[in-house]
Amino acid sequence: MAVYTEVSFEDLERLLEQYDIGQPLSFKGIAEGIENSNFYLQTDRGAFILTLYEKRVNPDDLPFFLGLMEHLAERGLNCPLPVKTRDGKSLVSLNGRHAAIVTFLTGIALRRPDAAHCAAAASVMAQLHKAQEGFVLTRANALGPEGWGPLATLISLKEPDSIEDGLNNLISTSLHELVGAWPTGLPWGVIHADYFPDNVLFVQDKVGGVIDYYFACNDFYIYDLAIMLNSWCFELDGSYNITKGQAVIQAYRAARPLSEDEIAALPVLMRGAALRFLLTRTFDWLNPDPNALVRPKDPREYSKKLRFHNKVKHAREYGL
Amino acid sequence: MAVYTEVSFEDLERLLEQYDIGQPLSFKGIAEGIENSNFYLQTDRGAFILTLYEKRVNPDDLPFFLGLMEHLAERGLNCPLPVKTRDGKSLVSLNGRHAAIVTFLTGIALRRPDAAHCAAAASVMAQLHKAQEGFVLTRANALGPEGWGPLATLISLKEPDSIEDGLNNLISTSLHELVGAWPTGLPWGVIHADYFPDNVLFVQDKVGGVIDYYFACNDFYIYDLAIMLNSWCFELDGSYNITKGQAVIQAYRAARPLSEDEIAALPVLMRGAALRFLLTRTFDWLNPDPNALVRPKDPREYSKKLRFHNKVKHAREYGL
Repeated sequence: MAVYTEVSFEDLERLLEQYDIGQPLSFKGIAEGIENSNFYLQTDRGAFILTLYEKRVNPDDLPFFLGLMEHLAERGLNCPLPVKTRDGKSLVSLNGRHAAIVTFLTGIALRRPDAAHCAAAASVMAQLHKAQEGFVLTRANALGPEGWGPLATLISLKEPDSIEDGLNNLISTSLHELVGAWPTGLPWGVIHADYFPDNVLFVQDKVGGVIDYYFACNDFYIYDLAIMLNSWCFELDGSYNITKGQAVIQAYRAARPLSEDEIAALPVLMRGAALRFLLTRTFDWLNPDPNALVRPKDPREYSKKLRFHNKVKHAREYGL
Repeated sequence: MAVYTEVSFEDLERLLEQYDIGQPLSFKGIAEGIENSNFYLQTDRGAFILTLYEKRVNPDDLPFFLGLMEHLAERGLNCPLPVKTRDGKSLVSLNGRHAAIVTFLTGIALRRPDAAHCAAAASVMAQLHKAQEGFVLTRANALGPEGWGPLATLISLKEPDSIEDGLNNLISTSLHELVGAWPTGLPWGVIHADYFPDNVLFVQDKVGGVIDYYFACNDFYIYDLAIMLNSWCFELDGSYNITKGQAVIQAYRAARPLSEDEIAALPVLMRGAALRFLLTRTFDWLNPDPNALVRPKDPREYSKKLRFHNKVKHAREYGL
């Protein structure tokens, strides 16, 4: 959650002169996303989100993110649609930041999705993987295996074992094994790469929309599914809920079949997904941003998941 | 701004079972108020704010605050109306906090209101002072002159001069003079006591509503006007804008005439209002809450205003 950059009504009025979306009726900073400043904007023509991109977002990536949302929305996926200015731009400048206005999606993120919610969300992930076809821009996964080594090095300099005994060893051992075992040649395209329950909005039991495309990148589709299984299918006590795992995998496969290679790679990708979130959470925990209006998330949730995956031998154990 | 206590969708669903306000469609933590946790809630029946009262609010005061909003709304003032549960309660419990749902008011707070906005807001303040008549509950002003001494003592122990040279002396001198000169017997009733531009929402050039009643208390009406003049009529460079001052006073008097005694007392009350905000801002600056998701406001805005008032001889200088 965050509002880092303040936007006054007067700033907003000047900004809206560039758009054709009506007169502002409400404008509130909202606790959404951890990377940017977000505002809920209601006008006489509809509801929108204004985002100001803060320093963790590379401005060079913004055409990819905004273009992707437009591409997906045009293909029927419920995702925020960037609103264009009168002269056709999605990206503007406000208070020294890059900024964009997107349509507001109705729906509420669930803290404790049940198996039916998991299935509904997995089905929409498969839709997303199909809808992204034909999108011409690409973006490398900065948080893929090549990015893990530098992060692990920075972490090792800051006493990670102060968080949990043996954490540094868990990270370095897993990193070493995973980089050697990482698959190649699996089906790939643009993935969401942060498909957590926070980013899937439900209206009753249906998916109202998928938000927060700011980690999207080109990678294996099955890696996106591994991120989802990690974030949707563990219980609060750290146990893996295989009923939810089955619901996710079945619903996904019904919309996009999985190859034998993808299935065989799942255990390694599950470990990789857990390591990726363990690394970023550990780094953020050890390097708190004094200006952030957000508490870092507990890395130990992901060290526990990684230890679980380290014992898994076959994709069946995840519900296949 | 703040979201201190998290509320999951599942918490919200359980809460809404007590109400008859429809199904939730959107639910977002919002950056509003500095004392409590606030959430924007949209259902198929309308828009609402859910507030969880945090530790700075005395639970014994909640019936006063909620009853006041109900009293004012029933008398036509645009203020949030507490929504009652099916069994008639305005106040409920959620995640270990007292909580309430109120109607959402359309409108946007202005950062730089002009003289016409000042007049519109002052006119609504006078309406508020009339609308509160007949409200049976009372609440002493905890931040009135009796509350200043203890705050000043706590401040003096923490090197206030680290904020600004001479601050401790300014506070102790002003406190001594003001407590001796504080008027008695002026017209009084329930006042808003925090009538800053943040708390007055505009739709175009009209006041859409007045929010944040959590400092409301029984005190002199003219003291409320002094708080408003302090917070609406100074420019960013610290100069007093007498055109705005005149606009406020004229619009207020048109709706509620001022007595000779009230006019004579204005300079002392202007100093008192400046001292009150100087004290709380200085205290918050010197005692930052590590859990607060908010940056303390700069006390020097109010030391500058207080030094200005200390040179004023007559209410005319404020625009009377």
